[in-house]
Amino acid sequence: MQGLMMDVPLSITSVMRHAERNHAEREVIALTADGGLKRQTYTETFRRARRLANALARLGLAPGDRGATLAWNDSRHMELYYAVSCAGYVLHTLNPRLPPRQIAWIAHHAGDRCLFADPEFAPLVAAITPQLPELRTVIFLADPRGMPVSGPENALCYEQLLEPESEHFDWPALDERSASSLCYTSGTTGDPKGVLYSHRSTVLHAMAANMADVMGTRSTDCVLPVVPMFHVNAWGTPYFAPMAGAKLVLPGRRAGDPATLCDLIDGEQVTLSLGVPTVWLALLQYLEQTGRRLPGLARVVVGGSACPEAIIDAFRDRHGIEVHHAWGMTETSPLGSFNTPRAGDERLPETDRRQRRASQGRAVFGIELRIVGDDGREQARDGRSCGALQARGPFVASAYYAPDGLVTAQHREWFDTGDVAAIDAAGYMRITDRTKDVIKSGGEWISSIELENLAVAHPAIAEAAVIAAQHERWGERPLLIVVRERGCTAQRDEILQFLAGRVPGWWLPDDVIFVEGIPHTATGKIDKRALRREYAEVLRQRPSADPLLSMR
Amino acid sequence: MQGLMMDVPLSITSVMRHAERNHAEREVIALTADGGLKRQTYTETFRRARRLANALARLGLAPGDRGATLAWNDSRHMELYYAVSCAGYVLHTLNPRLPPRQIAWIAHHAGDRCLFADPEFAPLVAAITPQLPELRTVIFLADPRGMPVSGPENALCYEQLLEPESEHFDWPALDERSASSLCYTSGTTGDPKGVLYSHRSTVLHAMAANMADVMGTRSTDCVLPVVPMFHVNAWGTPYFAPMAGAKLVLPGRRAGDPATLCDLIDGEQVTLSLGVPTVWLALLQYLEQTGRRLPGLARVVVGGSACPEAIIDAFRDRHGIEVHHAWGMTETSPLGSFNTPRAGDERLPETDRRQRRASQGRAVFGIELRIVGDDGREQARDGRSCGALQARGPFVASAYYAPDGLVTAQHREWFDTGDVAAIDAAGYMRITDRTKDVIKSGGEWISSIELENLAVAHPAIAEAAVIAAQHERWGERPLLIVVRERGCTAQRDEILQFLAGRVPGWWLPDDVIFVEGIPHTATGKIDKRALRREYAEVLRQRPSADPLLSMR
Repeated sequence: MQGLMMDVPLSITSVMRHAERNHAEREVIALTADGGLKRQTYTETFRRARRLANALARLGLAPGDRGATLAWNDSRHMELYYAVSCAGYVLHTLNPRLPPRQIAWIAHHAGDRCLFADPEFAPLVAAITPQLPELRTVIFLADPRGMPVSGPENALCYEQLLEPESEHFDWPALDERSASSLCYTSGTTGDPKGVLYSHRSTVLHAMAANMADVMGTRSTDCVLPVVPMFHVNAWGTPYFAPMAGAKLVLPGRRAGDPATLCDLIDGEQVTLSLGVPTVWLALLQYLEQTGRRLPGLARVVVGGSACPEAIIDAFRDRHGIEVHHAWGMTETSPLGSFNTPRAGDERLPETDRRQRRASQGRAVFGIELRIVGDDGREQARDGRSCGALQARGPFVASAYYAPDGLVTAQHREWFDTGDVAAIDAAGYMRITDRTKDVIKSGGEWISSIELENLAVAHPAIAEAAVIAAQHERWGERPLLIVVRERGCTAQRDEILQFLAGRVPGWWLPDDVIFVEGIPHTATGKIDKRALRREYAEVLRQRPSADPLLSMR
Repeated sequence: MQGLMMDVPLSITSVMRHAERNHAEREVIALTADGGLKRQTYTETFRRARRLANALARLGLAPGDRGATLAWNDSRHMELYYAVSCAGYVLHTLNPRLPPRQIAWIAHHAGDRCLFADPEFAPLVAAITPQLPELRTVIFLADPRGMPVSGPENALCYEQLLEPESEHFDWPALDERSASSLCYTSGTTGDPKGVLYSHRSTVLHAMAANMADVMGTRSTDCVLPVVPMFHVNAWGTPYFAPMAGAKLVLPGRRAGDPATLCDLIDGEQVTLSLGVPTVWLALLQYLEQTGRRLPGLARVVVGGSACPEAIIDAFRDRHGIEVHHAWGMTETSPLGSFNTPRAGDERLPETDRRQRRASQGRAVFGIELRIVGDDGREQARDGRSCGALQARGPFVASAYYAPDGLVTAQHREWFDTGDVAAIDAAGYMRITDRTKDVIKSGGEWISSIELENLAVAHPAIAEAAVIAAQHERWGERPLLIVVRERGCTAQRDEILQFLAGRVPGWWLPDDVIFVEGIPHTATGKIDKRALRREYAEVLRQRPSADPLLSMR
């Protein structure tokens, strides 16, 4: 028997309508390229989105066509977020930090029909457009004076495009499962993969984000996403902020500069901000150096990579700012887990509390997380057992986008995150490794990341990498590769001794290799593939002490 | 183009799974009939729900069958909420406070197959079962010692029913639009009407409720619903509390007693409680009399009828408790609007701030509200224009339940709430009347409620009712009917004089009728239908001053 409730779709259009009806005068503030602040209300923002929707129709876009952006966080990008998706097209946010060749590959793969770009990306646009025959129109996000001198011929000016259009536009009724936006994830292996969000997934993700124990956004909040709008929709900020009626501050291209960030947070009374650890580290250092304070900033959300505990502690103890650790991926929209203290945590011993605080938090409602072993069976939620982390839910990707409706790499009931994690009885999840880096030894999993973190705590070690070396008896055994601090001469046994008390005996690396430097990937991570190519075989023929003997 | 996101349904089962995985040890506490407290965790609660689901299958229920309850707020009722809906049946919460004849009518109309009742309702059950041939089984919510001595033959014992069952049950995969629960609304006219909620509407409503600016429930909260679980699903508490991981305190049959309520709030450290104004008035009086304090109670949600400002002020000023005014109906799941201060409200003059605070609040995300005039056109959102209040959204009813799939009174795109309201530019909605009571005079709407509230402020008036009297020229004109305070002799002109400065001239009642008593409905409201039958014609032949003349 079916329920008798209205069949009203979950659409991004409904977020816009809600903000217009209930938060009309709240502001969207953008830092412009010249350092000024552009202020407009949600009403004005969505009025401009209507003009843009009329313009998009005039440009000849058909339902489902991809409209791409190469843009920083600002109010025109916000207008695109709503006009493109709510008019029935698909917003494709390109990452301008990728190599031009990769951007062209992605734009071609996505079949982008038009491209909206900040003027500063004119050289990049000029470089990629020749490779994009299906791209019909380039529009620079500028007024006539701000148009770039170079750039493709026939490029249009955003403000001129909007100028003649009507502020009235009848947003179409959309199927909630229709595509709203597209974001490519560039893994370390293979081609980039496109995640195609739906209106439904986007709205549910924003609702989940606004719950009190997650972002907890209120109409009295002022939100500043440092995370770029081309990076998984700025973690949902362009949707959850208007849904809650929060003021939105968009830092343009200057978000990486701590002085600018500090000015914006202070000047606009930002209460909630989101970004990667490096941003917060830089801001903390700036605050220390200048003695400035940010009394209005209440919450900082950290994601993208693990956040050092020192950052969490410094924000809380020295600035009264609560840091929430979040975990997610492009494929999870991205909010997968979020760290907020749970009832009863305050009664735990300090070490357990710290461990929970430093963890990636608990699954947000809408996401189910589990860990599975090599045999695909779910592992115990005891905080110690590790397994491959899997996710499912209405805002988790089911497949990657492929042209012509071909679907690649269908995820079945669960999505494999590629992370290795432990989950405790209270649901706190701790990422311990990447699946491809974890060391599988005698049926047990050893975390390369934990060994590396312990190793660099040795005063003689400047950098450390742990890889899985092949082993005849144990399958794999950990191999520690280290760069010594200048002038230090610590030897193998001293380093293993140092680790011995701190990890289970069978985790102890079989050997230590001293190198002058460790290779890194383009994004600054340790290049473990290169290390494995070089060192994976060094242990194979070597006998090793029975590591399981020392487990007792 | 369709998005590529997982097709995971929004189901009540997912709420249960989320609580089990992330909030296993949070407690559900119920006050038992003997005054003791029964404590069980969410894990235990849902384990018992699995046993119950096995028992329901053994009782021979088929998908979509209605399982009814006659029960107070306690943990067995909570088990029924999950077992019945998640196993694919429909939970039908009957209101034991209705006349037995009406309960029998509703249970027959719903086609209830089994009935779970608190033992104290045994006489009621005995009275109605003869009229319910399709009812197969009666189960009393008790252990063997608690079984009623009277009651239908063959009635089963809940604990005996569960005892032999397995704790394992594979919850079925459900279509998110399938029916989950059924609740009848007994309007003042016509037969009761059944609202048939879906899994989807229930989950979306709970997500909307948990947003920071609505209930804002956190895992650190402890929620006590005074509102009964047979009254629109206790406003969603049985769903939103486990979704957030909040502790749940269920006050059994004793919720109406302020001393018990105070003990529970204090003893269990309740942070959030929900109920109708009379409950809070009684609690306030009890606190005044005893000098007790409730330092842990942070938020109180008031709905069901308009909350006097004195209650809001007393809670805030004398007890530091924030009162949130909410509005909704059975047909809106029920949360339609919720009052939380908005950014900028603190800068308003005190009178405007008070008006906003006393209003029914702003639409929650998921509900759209609008007001329309007699011609069906939307009225201005200016805080002054009044119109018939309409609602739409994914948790608003589209029709009422009818046996055999017949659908009665299909609501088209908007649901008519039957209320008259004004909405201001910031979205604050103020109910001014019921559609059937508002006085439509010369094309303008006059609020009977506002006139009544002003009239009873006159020291000589004990009770007042304003009805629409028919008028040849103006269509309708307000007629004031009053009961004088004992010993008072105030006359017509004195009373109209008193009102004259307080309302627009054309709102002034055309006459005042003095009566010994005003008739009331069974639920204690003024019976305006009876008054209209008696007095609607008294003005028809009478000339009246041109009311529009005094508008200037």
